[in-house]
Amino acid sequence: MLPPSTSLGTGFSRVTIIGLGLIGSSIARAVGKYMPDVVVTGYDANPDVRATAQAIGLCGDIADSAGAAVTDADFVIFCVPVGAMGAAAAEIAADLPADAVVSDVGSCKESVAAELMAALPGAKVIPAHPVAGTENSGPEAGFATLFQNRWCIVTPPEGADSLAVERVCEFWRALGAEVEMMAPDHHDRVLAVTSHLPHLIAYTIVGTASDLEEVTRSEVIKYSAGGFRDFTRIAASDPTMWRDVFLSNKEAVLDMLQRFSEDLSALQRAIRWGKGDELFDLFTRTRAIRRSILEEGQDDARPDFGRSHDE
Amino acid sequence: MLPPSTSLGTGFSRVTIIGLGLIGSSIARAVGKYMPDVVVTGYDANPDVRATAQAIGLCGDIADSAGAAVTDADFVIFCVPVGAMGAAAAEIAADLPADAVVSDVGSCKESVAAELMAALPGAKVIPAHPVAGTENSGPEAGFATLFQNRWCIVTPPEGADSLAVERVCEFWRALGAEVEMMAPDHHDRVLAVTSHLPHLIAYTIVGTASDLEEVTRSEVIKYSAGGFRDFTRIAASDPTMWRDVFLSNKEAVLDMLQRFSEDLSALQRAIRWGKGDELFDLFTRTRAIRRSILEEGQDDARPDFGRSHDE
Ligand SMILES: NC(=O)c1ccc[n+]([C@@H]2O[C@H](COP(=O)([O-])OP(=O)(O)OC[C@H]3O[C@@H](n4cnc5c(N)ncnc54)[C@H](OP(=O)(O)O)[C@@H]3O)[C@@H](O)[C@H]2O)c1
Ligand SMILES: NC(=O)c1ccc[n+]([C@@H]2O[C@H](COP(=O)([O-])OP(=O)(O)OC[C@H]3O[C@@H](n4cnc5c(N)ncnc54)[C@H](OP(=O)(O)O)[C@@H]3O)[C@@H](O)[C@H]2O)c1
Repeated sequence: MLPPSTSLGTGFSRVTIIGLGLIGSSIARAVGKYMPDVVVTGYDANPDVRATAQAIGLCGDIADSAGAAVTDADFVIFCVPVGAMGAAAAEIAADLPADAVVSDVGSCKESVAAELMAALPGAKVIPAHPVAGTENSGPEAGFATLFQNRWCIVTPPEGADSLAVERVCEFWRALGAEVEMMAPDHHDRVLAVTSHLPHLIAYTIVGTASDLEEVTRSEVIKYSAGGFRDFTRIAASDPTMWRDVFLSNKEAVLDMLQRFSEDLSALQRAIRWGKGDELFDLFTRTRAIRRSILEEGQDDARPDFGRSHDE
Repeated sequence: MLPPSTSLGTGFSRVTIIGLGLIGSSIARAVGKYMPDVVVTGYDANPDVRATAQAIGLCGDIADSAGAAVTDADFVIFCVPVGAMGAAAAEIAADLPADAVVSDVGSCKESVAAELMAALPGAKVIPAHPVAGTENSGPEAGFATLFQNRWCIVTPPEGADSLAVERVCEFWRALGAEVEMMAPDHHDRVLAVTSHLPHLIAYTIVGTASDLEEVTRSEVIKYSAGGFRDFTRIAASDPTMWRDVFLSNKEAVLDMLQRFSEDLSALQRAIRWGKGDELFDLFTRTRAIRRSILEEGQDDARPDFGRSHDE
């Protein structure tokens, strides 16, 4: 049932990317690098972004409307904020070729799948989420190797066309990612803990620090190398994207937040009552997780993320 | 009143380092590199650490006892966990030369100053805290450039000998640090927010993630690139050091934790009630802090900490 393994691998020859920010522009660059025969068309609702994409020669063609971008596509990927997926899909509904495969890169999968399928009834919708990114956004922030050795989670809806699923998986493999399959709701719970909760907490602590009275903001900035600065990187991520993520994955995020708050209260209590052993035990347990992440190649083992110390 | 500016700069010619872990061994290496004329003697309570320090030629001499290490020192720096400062100081009380300057590198200053002064009555105690470190510990984790362009906060007790203060400041400048003066209690509040609270939160979230039932530990590890992995780096820091920090700086840590919890509850409420604007506003505000940290050279501006994406 699989297409013969061509130089393209995926069988897609005309790919359209809707939304040319960090992720969309990284896909455009990666396709250009790893699948040079594939024709890439881009579209973004923001005319400035389209102009930039045009100016830097991001892909073969930048269309003036979403509809025009998809008329001869065999694969369409939505790379817009999670809350904009439904509206972006509605814009192409009239022009989408019947046999095109549709996917997205949204950070939540259950709500996005529902919106794409509602806006594009009958289309072959195979949602996916590349677990890769940086704190920067926009078309100039992207790079071709963003997905190398990172995971891409594909979340096919029940009854999905298995050939379409396989082609989407091959597409991501061709971009350097390792592909894993997951049910959408399970995806949303896993990412709630590995990504959404960390972002929420980073945003909170940076907010807390900037609201203090007797510790000045300039002191917070000066002495941030003690740990705080790592949180500020995450808390510099795109506000629109993250607002949408928290609202779209509300239930799982609130559940994880509840567990986190309980654990934090327990630690607070241990500090208040001077229970050093409890603290020591937790702090020892958490080291093991770090070791596994390094073993699995999901982070940089050099101390301090390999930050340079001798500039 | 200042000593003539010699090649040594500080006027110290025999420096003793008690505790040869990450910070102590980094100081030893940095003195070797930037003040090659200064004689460095080291001591550590752990015989394995002494043997390693000896084997790697960390410094001129490794003494067999704390007392022997300080007999002819003009500067003694304690680089042991905060909770061990008092005991470590008591061990040298009988052998400390009367005019030697005593300092430390502990992450909390009020409690440490009190313990050092109690154990060494009459000694010139000038506590300090280099705001620099990595998640690794032990004598092999240190490196000479750890303090380059980082801040070192010096917290002289009231009535401190001003020449001794100036010599300690010069010592840190010679190691590449920028020196700032602060009252000990203010230091403890500033660091509670820029360092201690971030560590506490990182330890908590990594603990929360590893306790989930329906999301497996291997999933947490696999998909950690979404944000979680940055927390695991901090949560891999030394358990003894951090237990001691939280117990020694209890009051400031509990106060910051209380503020953080209130802010987190507000965000939780905003998510529950779908208040996208509130989320968006906070997430926009926190970006500014990141920008300032980069402008001040306190972090690496390359996206994702400059992690390599094309291995
Ligand atoms: N950043 C990450 O780390 C990361 C990682 C994995 C997945 N994701 C997911 O990837 C998606 C894109 O994120 P990103 O970081 O690439 O965001 P980004 O850099 O902000 O880019 C999104 C682009 O989509 C445009 N857009 C908004 N609504 C649109 C619409 N209806 N039609 C066409 N274009 C529209 C935006 O225009 P404006 O300039 O007007 O906003 C912007 O140029 C999100 O769903 C996010 O959850 C992000
Ligand atoms: N790590 C950081 O990021 C950082 C940054 C700034 C300041 N500091 C402060 O620097 C100090 C040292 O931290 P570190 O990271 O260098 O820790 P480390 O790598 O664990 O080294 C501490 C060393 O001191 C030894 N020690 C313990 N009690 C002693 C005693 N009574 N006498 C002599 N040696 C003793 C330890 O022996 P064992 O092997 O038996 O434990 C260990 O070898 C702490 O006060 C910490 O708060 C740390």
